[in-house]
Amino acid sequence: MTATDFDIPTLRARRTNKWHKFPADVLPAWVADMDFGVAPPITAALQRLTDKQEYGYAAREGALAAAFARRMASRFNWHTDLKDVVAIGDLVQASFSAVMAFSEPGESVLLQLPSYPPFMLAIQDTGRRLIANPMKDDGVCWRLDLDSYDAAPDPTARMMIFCHPQNPTGRAYNRTELEAVAAFAIRHNLIVVSDEIHADIVYPGGVHIPLASLSPEIAARTITITSATKSFNIPALRCAVMHFGAPALKAHFEKRVPSRLLGSPAVTGVDATVAGWDEGQPWLDEILAQLKANRDWLAATIAAELPGVTLRLPEATYLAWLDCRGLEIPGSAGQFFLDHAKVGLNFGETFGAQYPGFARLNFATPAPVLKEIVGRMVDAVRQR
Amino acid sequence: MTATDFDIPTLRARRTNKWHKFPADVLPAWVADMDFGVAPPITAALQRLTDKQEYGYAAREGALAAAFARRMASRFNWHTDLKDVVAIGDLVQASFSAVMAFSEPGESVLLQLPSYPPFMLAIQDTGRRLIANPMKDDGVCWRLDLDSYDAAPDPTARMMIFCHPQNPTGRAYNRTELEAVAAFAIRHNLIVVSDEIHADIVYPGGVHIPLASLSPEIAARTITITSATKSFNIPALRCAVMHFGAPALKAHFEKRVPSRLLGSPAVTGVDATVAGWDEGQPWLDEILAQLKANRDWLAATIAAELPGVTLRLPEATYLAWLDCRGLEIPGSAGQFFLDHAKVGLNFGETFGAQYPGFARLNFATPAPVLKEIVGRMVDAVRQR
Repeated sequence: MTATDFDIPTLRARRTNKWHKFPADVLPAWVADMDFGVAPPITAALQRLTDKQEYGYAAREGALAAAFARRMASRFNWHTDLKDVVAIGDLVQASFSAVMAFSEPGESVLLQLPSYPPFMLAIQDTGRRLIANPMKDDGVCWRLDLDSYDAAPDPTARMMIFCHPQNPTGRAYNRTELEAVAAFAIRHNLIVVSDEIHADIVYPGGVHIPLASLSPEIAARTITITSATKSFNIPALRCAVMHFGAPALKAHFEKRVPSRLLGSPAVTGVDATVAGWDEGQPWLDEILAQLKANRDWLAATIAAELPGVTLRLPEATYLAWLDCRGLEIPGSAGQFFLDHAKVGLNFGETFGAQYPGFARLNFATPAPVLKEIVGRMVDAVRQR
Repeated sequence: MTATDFDIPTLRARRTNKWHKFPADVLPAWVADMDFGVAPPITAALQRLTDKQEYGYAAREGALAAAFARRMASRFNWHTDLKDVVAIGDLVQASFSAVMAFSEPGESVLLQLPSYPPFMLAIQDTGRRLIANPMKDDGVCWRLDLDSYDAAPDPTARMMIFCHPQNPTGRAYNRTELEAVAAFAIRHNLIVVSDEIHADIVYPGGVHIPLASLSPEIAARTITITSATKSFNIPALRCAVMHFGAPALKAHFEKRVPSRLLGSPAVTGVDATVAGWDEGQPWLDEILAQLKANRDWLAATIAAELPGVTLRLPEATYLAWLDCRGLEIPGSAGQFFLDHAKVGLNFGETFGAQYPGFARLNFATPAPVLKEIVGRMVDAVRQR
């Protein structure tokens, strides 16, 4: 069996949210994990723990930070210091804690829309105000629109949650765009939480540049949050890192948020992450080839078979942000495909209230499954 | 190999804090995990995840709360509602978040001493004031001293962190004592965080009674925090529960502490906990028999071979709180045994500044290892 060779009965037997949210006649293509396995070094690391029955308090001091530093250096030529890293369970926890540390209730946080839904919650559930900064489809790709905020800045804005590569649009911003973001954050005196969890999943032609690597000035106000869970398909192991671009930033965070309040990743998450980052790239290269083939097939098939649906080719992520407004479906496009195609997408309106005409499709699935998903969608549109 | 048959080279090869804090010539008897393995159902649960490469977002909604409810009912005849449970990474996180939710900076929290050190941090690192409530050795066992607080109550006290069975003294409080605690908490209008992580490790003659099971009145102000990690030897899997004794208590907590700030346990922790609680008791019974034998041997040997050291027989836990003041060692008893016996105990002064003459010994280790540990201590005392 190759790394991407899982059939539907095997996948459906998985005890995962992806395969259990919807009834059995629905094919899921929603939550962002992959219908593949994990890298052999990850299996070996977890097997070692099981074989040794070794679940006492784990001696892994600094192991995660060191693996993060090696990975950032080898993959993105970004040189980080172990002292600037905090281990945490997941990026949602990271965003909540950062918002609570660097703003006060009633102050505002800027966020590009469409957005990964928990980032909106990190702002709203903590009593901050969300400043929506919608992206624009320029006919070729989705673009940041910083100008509209420049024209009407909010004096209570303290932070920006920035997602790069962007979920759900799949944008991998280039250096020019990122330099504009950095200048924008400095100009408006914003602390930036930079979600870079999709950094490893960038297709040929694109490149990932860590925001904090641009200059010491932007680093000093940037908290980079990332994890191996997305690229190495281990989200249930709950392991992530926060990197503070300057010691003062971390000191402020730790003063505001007691570190023991946040817990710490389990040894299974730490060992799997270190194994993935250090030894998992051959497996990930194989996965990336499959993802690229899926992406290209998906884009071509949508263009040919789904008139009324527009996809701007994702440069990164295994997520396709489908603009279904041309179908002129009343209400939610996601609901339409769930009801009529028996395909479970993420509903666009969960990424921002203005997006009911959109849906997010996860194409990290074996090619036969993807063909079945899209085939069902094509049939549903034709049979309207 | 039986459940308790691990030799020193095997133990020393473990990548745990216990076996790596001190140099290789030191035998560790400190941090509270066991030098044993894990229950076979736990190994099976973790092996299943590894075999299936199943680390996508896990469908375990309510599984931990349901297993907790089954365990509390079957073992302690305590009937709980799934809705009252919050899953969390560890008890330290639980205590920090509870203190932050139910008190304000500058207010006070009562704590019996000697205490598990992180509970002092949960009070101090969050800007609350610690009201020390020292226990008293009555010549037979360690006793609560609620009267001294009654005589001089603190008007800013809002909470009590109560440890039951008590770490490090090993007390398993009886019903009369617990009823006094409940009346005390009600009388002083205190919210109680009841750490019951050692509930499964109570020796014949003792019994564990959950504090919240005493009456609806005490339940309504009690947050019970517990975990399978202690009895089933899986602390590195980071999985615990908070049980709120009334819906209003949980609602207040969730209003003050956004749930996503706390993260959630990894699937490995959830599956191992459920397996341990539901199917691990035969293994635990075997372990408890070994722990009781160790406890009895330790108590007899200290009485016979270590004049100047007093141990009140622990009714619960695998921890021995050694009163070494009779040795008349200047300074720290823990440091003395580290330097002269090459035995790594927990230093008494970390359980409260007034306890440098004490040390905590973890006797959850194979009998030959325990004999070597105590033999070294006896030699060190004799050679002074």
